[in-house]
Amino acid sequence: MPRRTDTRQRVLHTAAELFRRQGYQATGLNQVLQEGGAPKGSLYFHFPGGKEQLAVEAITLAGTELCDTIAGVLASATDPVSGVDGVVRALADDLVRSDFRRGCPLGTVAQTTVDNDAIRQACAAVFETWRRLVERALVAGGVPEDVAPSLATMTIAAVEGGQLLARNQKDVAPLLAVGTQLTELIRAHLREGQ
Amino acid sequence: MPRRTDTRQRVLHTAAELFRRQGYQATGLNQVLQEGGAPKGSLYFHFPGGKEQLAVEAITLAGTELCDTIAGVLASATDPVSGVDGVVRALADDLVRSDFRRGCPLGTVAQTTVDNDAIRQACAAVFETWRRLVERALVAGGVPEDVAPSLATMTIAAVEGGQLLARNQKDVAPLLAVGTQLTELIRAHLREGQ
Repeated sequence: MPRRTDTRQRVLHTAAELFRRQGYQATGLNQVLQEGGAPKGSLYFHFPGGKEQLAVEAITLAGTELCDTIAGVLASATDPVSGVDGVVRALADDLVRSDFRRGCPLGTVAQTTVDNDAIRQACAAVFETWRRLVERALVAGGVPEDVAPSLATMTIAAVEGGQLLARNQKDVAPLLAVGTQLTELIRAHLREGQ
Repeated sequence: MPRRTDTRQRVLHTAAELFRRQGYQATGLNQVLQEGGAPKGSLYFHFPGGKEQLAVEAITLAGTELCDTIAGVLASATDPVSGVDGVVRALADDLVRSDFRRGCPLGTVAQTTVDNDAIRQACAAVFETWRRLVERALVAGGVPEDVAPSLATMTIAAVEGGQLLARNQKDVAPLLAVGTQLTELIRAHLREGQ
């Protein structure tokens, strides 16, 4: 008999994947349970707060996983220009591999849950974690400290929008253009910092 | 008795507004008809292609309206730096006025309709119209022609992502940071062009 924690984790991963592809409203609880291999009606046993709790936990899980990926790419790069370039390329590869179905794990959910404070804040917390990661890499690489917060926000925003345009066109070209322009912008700020 | 074209236009505007706020899946046809003041069951009379046709026409309408706004702001600016800055500020004002409910008229729909080719292409056509508008303003202002297409894509992507982050945080700060960084980037390219 599968352990309770296994089922819970499986449901959570399935939910994260479905929210990512379809958004919040379009994802039904029965679909999550069925694809997660959990018995019908078991959702409130694992998630007493229902769909909202499931979404908050799924977003946090997917956000943390992507955070680890971003941190790994940034840490293995020699400077913030190649670091941001590496992150953009990794995301572009993900889009191609999933035939443009898997975009940002938060983008779709965040667009459609502005009126749900719990989910909105869960998304905001993940966006802020990513932003700080980028900000730290920029400062470590020599971007002036007064510029880094705004440049990091720009990086997250542009990459989000780039993924949206790439999914919409089923072509990574817009995301790669964003990568080119972002690295150009970081270089300009690095010159200022010298 | 209201004319048929009045009802049709009213339904279309209502649909554009609801898709913009809620996305495609979360918007029901009954809600559109009710809020648009059209008789229940009259949708297929006005839109024989159903919800998909309604979405395609609503996106095109909302996209064209915003296009006129963007074109107006860009045309009244003396250079592309103040033009893009003006567009960002106009969008930020819109967000505040709607208490962050009205973001980009396409963003939410585009995120959730990657698998619907008709709607996907309607969104792509509008994004491309906006991109070309920005590209023309950049070239007219002195940005090198080989850079302008990619810089225009970056502008659309960053502004999309900036609106998403601003709605998610219920604060225009991320969108204004995008504006600051975009104008910085355009200035860097203008220096190159000299």
